[in-house]
Formats: sequence, structure tokens, C-alpha cells
Amino acid sequence: MTRPDSGPGATDVLAAAARIGGVVRRTPLLAVDALPAILLKAEHLQLGGSFKTRGAANAMLAGNARAVVAGSSGNHGIALATLGRQLGVEVTVVMAGGASAAKAATLRSLGARVLQVPGGVVERDRYACEHAARTGAALIPSSDHDLVVAGQGTVGLEVFTDAPEIDLIFVPTGGGGLLAGICLAATCLATPVRIVGVEPAHGRRYARSLAAARPVELPPPDTIADGLRGQRPGVVPFPIIRQRVDELIGVTDESITSAMNLLHGAGIAAEPTGSVALAGALQFGAAGRAVAVVSGGNTLAAPPAPHGAMSAFAH
Amino acid sequence: MTRPDSGPGATDVLAAAARIGGVVRRTPLLAVDALPAILLKAEHLQLGGSFKTRGAANAMLAGNARAVVAGSSGNHGIALATLGRQLGVEVTVVMAGGASAAKAATLRSLGARVLQVPGGVVERDRYACEHAARTGAALIPSSDHDLVVAGQGTVGLEVFTDAPEIDLIFVPTGGGGLLAGICLAATCLATPVRIVGVEPAHGRRYARSLAAARPVELPPPDTIADGLRGQRPGVVPFPIIRQRVDELIGVTDESITSAMNLLHGAGIAAEPTGSVALAGALQFGAAGRAVAVVSGGNTLAAPPAPHGAMSAFAH
Repeated sequence: MTRPDSGPGATDVLAAAARIGGVVRRTPLLAVDALPAILLKAEHLQLGGSFKTRGAANAMLAGNARAVVAGSSGNHGIALATLGRQLGVEVTVVMAGGASAAKAATLRSLGARVLQVPGGVVERDRYACEHAARTGAALIPSSDHDLVVAGQGTVGLEVFTDAPEIDLIFVPTGGGGLLAGICLAATCLATPVRIVGVEPAHGRRYARSLAAARPVELPPPDTIADGLRGQRPGVVPFPIIRQRVDELIGVTDESITSAMNLLHGAGIAAEPTGSVALAGALQFGAAGRAVAVVSGGNTLAAPPAPHGAMSAFAH
Repeated sequence: MTRPDSGPGATDVLAAAARIGGVVRRTPLLAVDALPAILLKAEHLQLGGSFKTRGAANAMLAGNARAVVAGSSGNHGIALATLGRQLGVEVTVVMAGGASAAKAATLRSLGARVLQVPGGVVERDRYACEHAARTGAALIPSSDHDLVVAGQGTVGLEVFTDAPEIDLIFVPTGGGGLLAGICLAATCLATPVRIVGVEPAHGRRYARSLAAARPVELPPPDTIADGLRGQRPGVVPFPIIRQRVDELIGVTDESITSAMNLLHGAGIAAEPTGSVALAGALQFGAAGRAVAVVSGGNTLAAPPAPHGAMSAFAH
């Protein structure tokens, strides 16, 4: 598989930053007491609760769409629905039959139309594609799309602007849109940064695909990082990552949970998927000044009840 | 009760900002999807997990102390211990007999010496005072101290710099150090901002004291906002607050819990006390552009296990 020369480049990331600047948030880089050498790019504080809003906004605004559709059961759907409400764009999210009623209710509460179709992710995405063809709505995939990759790359631009002195960046890797976007943004850098993609140990699609020099499809991994299940290396991100990434590492559920607990203790409520990059950074060990991308915080759970240890420390 | 003219003023807050700038963090003002008119001053991301680190740092640095002591069972103790480790200052925290072993262990893990004395808060604070006199260590109270109030005021300076257009600021109110400091910082403003102190409904010490025109002591309130229990209006903060605060409101445990859940859903893991100002802002209702101070995040609890609703939304 080769990429057409027309794939996105660093200039597309810069164009995305200009396009989405008035819509998405410029999230802070956070220091944490327990992590002296690691800064956290706080995309859990992004509009819609994850970095997915950047790519979705770039595709939505560039296409000047009046209506969009996507197959999603997660952050991408929330991103589209949140943007749709803000920009006055009609959003349809197609969910697989087994998806939870709570997810559908959340999307509807954000103003999206939710269609549930029988079958799994393949049937869902096929239906979304047919819906786009039938209605004229723009189909916006969650990662395998030039404008989406360029939009996610704005995470990298902000990191490299705010922390030009870093040596490494750790990026959670599922479909690869965020990792590819950050690879593109890094081409703007005068001094190279080491880019490390972090995958669930049981679903190392990119590691396997890079070794095979082509996108390899694996069964959905059994991992608590549910944002990194069920995705294969995309046609758009794969060659970009192949050309630029320095390393891909795998992390266990135990280390993801441990990173999530550490984040929570520092005031950061991240979802398991959002804790994957930090788990990778902690596993990687001391190798310079690093940034880990906290990709999302959509836990949708109430916090633990305030008792016992929770309220142990007061003013 | 009157204040001597020598109490802290706006210039002391500016001096504190210059003094502690290289030690404490400049925390971000965060926007949250569900709160279009409210920004959150993220002191839960402060070094040591709360705004207390600002006042503690100001007192520690101004006095050029080699050793400090304080009575505390909470964020003030964590602040001192965290700073002590960073600045090479010997920190002793005196705790009442009933204080939990977990708290003591946390303080010790930060390098502080922990002394547990029989009795309650009164005995604890008397012992800390005697320890200071006996050893020469500087006594740093958690709020009733000129330098501590000036240090907490830097929260206000940052808010008014970053969001000069706001109409209101909501401030959690226990001993009153943060509220008084913000009142001082507000005197630097060209256009007035409305300052609202927020107390637990069952422990409205400042509301009662302002009505009585003198500090009124009430029994410890029964509230989940444990950082706002057991404190009386201090000699330093009381007259400052009396002169400048616009309003004091009370919030119930139910509204504090509700605010804490809202924050958690937005990726912000705050302690109950840290959610009090937002609870006040939500209760106050639409009255312009507002900032609520999220004063701390030291929950010390593991996040909820990733299952069911928690992991419902993925990428």
C-alpha cells in the first residue's frame, strides 16, 4: 500500500489550526507533582471531552457542511454532536445494534440524530456511508481522512509551541489519526522530537503493521482502553506514521489503570484510553523531558462518593 | 474588633506574586461545555493540589525560613510539605490525636515530620505555637496571617489578568484567607467585579460574623466540604472581607455533590471543598460572566473502576 502524493502535510495542519482556532479550545500543558519530567497535554479538557473535536471541526468547517454523518459509538460522535450544536450543523450518528442506550441518550441530548442499525461496526460504517450518499450529508470518519488527520495534528502544533524544549512525545494510538497528525506537525520543528506511539499490549496493530509494511487487521483487543479497540491502521495515517514515528510500545491494562489513578490523584479525571500515553511514558522510563497526551476525559461516571479516604485531606 | 492599619494591601499581593512566581504554578482558567457563562480557576492543578501552596510559599519565602511548623490536617499541611521538599525547608506538621494514619503517612511521604498530640484542633494549634517558640521554627497558619492572605490573593490577580471582562467571582470561604486575598487583588481593578463568598449552608460563619460586625464562632458544621469545617473568621481576613465582599451565600451538601459530579464529567477531579464555589455559582444563577475558584483536588481516592457507564464512551 502506498500513499498518493496528495496526502496531508504540515501545511494542512497549519491551515487546520487557523480554521478551527475560534471553535476548539487551546488546551493547557499541565505539570503534575508526581511527574517531574512529564507534562500532560490536557485534551480531556477539550470541547466535547477529547481531541476528536479538532479533526471533526476541521472536516466540518472546511467542507462548509450543513449536515454530517458518522458511524461512532464514542468520542468522535460526541465531538460531532457538540460541534453541530455550536455551529448549527445537522449531525447524524450511526450506532451498531448493541450500543448502549445511555450512549444514544447522551448523543441525543447534544442534539444529534441517532440511528441504530443491526450488526457490528462494519455494518454501522457501511450504513453511515450509504446514508451520506443518499442524503448528501458529509461523511466524516473518526480518523481515516485527510482533514481529520490534519485537525488532530493541531495537538502537536500546540505542544511544540508551548514546550519547544521537549525530547519525547507519547501518543495514544488506535486508528492512528492523532499519531499521524502529530507526525505531520513535527516536521515543522527545527530540533527533532522523538515520537512514541502507545498501543494496548493486546492490540498492537501499528507495531504489527509497520513490521509487515502494510496495514494488518487484528481482532478487537481485550483492553480497558475502549477507544483503542476495533480500529485498524487507516489508509491516510498509515504511511505518515510509517515514515516518521520513532517507536511503538504496548501497555497492559494494569499500567493503564495505574496511570489513570495517578492522574485522578492529580485532579485529572481521564478515561482509560486517555491514560494510555502516560502509561507508556511511565513504562518507557527516564529519557528526557516528555509530553504525554491525555486524549480524553469522557468517563460519564459520577465520581466516587465523598467519604473515607476521599475526604481525608481538607484545607 | 478593628484591623491595625498595617494589614496587607494590594501591593502585598503584587509582592507575593513576584516572590512565589518561580515556585507555584500559574493555573489555567478552564471552560467547560456544560457551563457557557462560567470559567473555572483550576487551583486543583496547583502544586500540592490546592491554592494553599500560594500563601504557604509566600510566608516561607518572605521569612527565608529554614524550618516551619503548622497545625493542619489538610491541604495546608500538604502545601507546606510539598514546598519544604522543593525548597529544602524542614517542615513539621502537628496533627490532632484523632487524625487519620493515612493523612500522616501522606505527609511523611512528602518528607514532613508529623507530630500527633492528644486533644482537638485547639490543642493542636497551641502545640504548634509552643513548638515554634521552643525550636525557632516559623509558625505558618493556614489563613490568619498577612503573608498567607497576600499569597492567596495571587489567585485573584491571575483571574483578573486572564479574564478582565468578568462580572462575578465565586470563592469558597472557610477561614477566609482566599476570599480576603481576592478582595485585596480586586482593588487593583479599573472596573469593579462582584465578589461572592460561598460557605456551607450549615456553617455560615462569615455571613453571621458580618451581620454581627465581629468574628462569630460557631460549632464545626456538618458538611462534606471538610476544608470549610472548624475554622473561624480570622483577625487578618475578617476586616478585609467586611470592607470589600459583595455577598455571602450558603450551599447545601446536595448542591456541592452535584457540582462535584459536573466537574468530574468535565475531566476535573475536585474534592468536595473544591466544588463549593461552583455550587454557589450554579445556585446564584445567570448574572453575567463568572469565575468560580476550584480550590483543590486532593481527593486521595482511586477513581471509580473502569466498567459500565464509565467506559461507555470511547474514541
